[in-house]
Amino acid sequence: MDAACFKNELDKRVEYIENVIGGYLPEEKGNASKVFAAMNYSVLAGGKRLRPMLVLETYRMFAGEGFPIVPDAVTAAMAAIECVHTYSLVHDDLPAMDNDEYRRGRLTTWKVYGDAIGILAGDGLLNYAFEILNEAAVKEFEKNDAVMAQRLIRAAACLSKKAGSFGMIGGQTADLEAEGKGNSVKLDELMFIHEHKTACLIQAALMMGAILGGADDDQLNAMERCGYNVGIAFQIQDDILDIIGNTEELGKKVGSDAANDKVTYVTLKGLEQSKADVELLSNEAEAILAGIEGDHEFLDALVLSLVTRRK
Amino acid sequence: MDAACFKNELDKRVEYIENVIGGYLPEEKGNASKVFAAMNYSVLAGGKRLRPMLVLETYRMFAGEGFPIVPDAVTAAMAAIECVHTYSLVHDDLPAMDNDEYRRGRLTTWKVYGDAIGILAGDGLLNYAFEILNEAAVKEFEKNDAVMAQRLIRAAACLSKKAGSFGMIGGQTADLEAEGKGNSVKLDELMFIHEHKTACLIQAALMMGAILGGADDDQLNAMERCGYNVGIAFQIQDDILDIIGNTEELGKKVGSDAANDKVTYVTLKGLEQSKADVELLSNEAEAILAGIEGDHEFLDALVLSLVTRRK
Repeated sequence: MDAACFKNELDKRVEYIENVIGGYLPEEKGNASKVFAAMNYSVLAGGKRLRPMLVLETYRMFAGEGFPIVPDAVTAAMAAIECVHTYSLVHDDLPAMDNDEYRRGRLTTWKVYGDAIGILAGDGLLNYAFEILNEAAVKEFEKNDAVMAQRLIRAAACLSKKAGSFGMIGGQTADLEAEGKGNSVKLDELMFIHEHKTACLIQAALMMGAILGGADDDQLNAMERCGYNVGIAFQIQDDILDIIGNTEELGKKVGSDAANDKVTYVTLKGLEQSKADVELLSNEAEAILAGIEGDHEFLDALVLSLVTRRK
Repeated sequence: MDAACFKNELDKRVEYIENVIGGYLPEEKGNASKVFAAMNYSVLAGGKRLRPMLVLETYRMFAGEGFPIVPDAVTAAMAAIECVHTYSLVHDDLPAMDNDEYRRGRLTTWKVYGDAIGILAGDGLLNYAFEILNEAAVKEFEKNDAVMAQRLIRAAACLSKKAGSFGMIGGQTADLEAEGKGNSVKLDELMFIHEHKTACLIQAALMMGAILGGADDDQLNAMERCGYNVGIAFQIQDDILDIIGNTEELGKKVGSDAANDKVTYVTLKGLEQSKADVELLSNEAEAILAGIEGDHEFLDALVLSLVTRRK
């Protein structure tokens, strides 16, 4: 897939996903309208919509469906994982956490709505992910589609595991612990953080798509490994960009990790080795996808774009 | 049920629920052990275990089972709702929210583990509730018990709705908004707060128990109304105790609402009217329970104890 074609296919998917997510967002009305406004502000901050896109494309690969596809179970999973991702950013930005005032060139949620609503909006989004998934499963039961209901529950179980204290929240915790250690953080601690803080939700995206698309256990395990590779490569690339990027492209202060005296993959392994490792992980991910039947031409290109991105 | 008998039955249930909850708590190990420690510290802070007890007793009433009962689906619901309740307290206590340093006579979670881990522990507990429920539903499917799997999903959907931005989080948001208004808060705003911040999770407890016990739609609606009455009565009683209680009994500073110039049911309606309304709501709740077949002797006594409690 050449660059122009990929860009065209990517744009179509982003537009589709924006519509899907928009359809799930709560109305901003009633006595609690402020938390809805803060939730929507957070979700509508833009971003790459990477995780829902991975759900969509992995589902398509296994289910053998073209694009656009619209099964409610799949759009529910797409919206849910974006809510989880967004809540993690909202809480991450809080003064008690990273104390970030800007994200993607916009004021962060707490900076607009205050700390307290920032906490509640994050809580609301995490909770909302499971409202969406549980409600979708109830509807599949009502349609007498017990197979899809069961797949949704397995997908929800996967998301909750990968997002929780055994997954992303655990990674966030280890990251906080590491901050206090300065330069003495070791590679295995850093890899724990990257795996849990970043890769777990990429894994969840690929695995949810696979489960909903009817993947068998071996294929599900393969997608979990693929998600690990993509997630770690993505994170290392993030660390690389922190060193070599520029403010305008990234919309955040570049070199902030280094300025914070924070150990990264790049500070531990050097820039060239880091680039080589990104390529290795990326190749392994592509090899896993190559072993799966079905249309994964766009998914291949997407994975490649993640690890060669410049912003 | 006389007072001694009730106390005996209550103690048996609290002990049973402590064991149930203890069995679901994560081990405190690995790179993210601090968040597990903070989650467990929060859950093991004691408390009345009211919500899991309401799940248990409502399930028993509809399923016609004696005590103790141990279906995994029910213990999962009990543990999950206590995780949700606990997370709400952990986040509520944060400096950016109520800034409370003590709860039930112990240091609050953030005071022991810091603000950042306080946020993550709350996130972890909310997420964990759905890990428990989704995993339990997956297991029911694996046991080929599609009926119980479906009930669990409906129970999870109910919990997520009542706990989220349309429920408890919405109540918390409205409460924050009201704080800025001082004495100009009106009764309908206050009732919105009480319904959502307090009654919604009581409703969820009764409704989850009813769903898991096989209640029909009319019975489920009845339990939702019952939960409203109990929740509002419970909250008004809380406001009453804030005025007339004493520090030793409550383990928190008494009169703190009044000291904060905070409008409560009691400041709006007066102490005597508030007491009368608690009795009215309590009687309505009892009447609903009386209309349902099955053993609800202990549940009746429990509801009565909530609204006549002195601490």
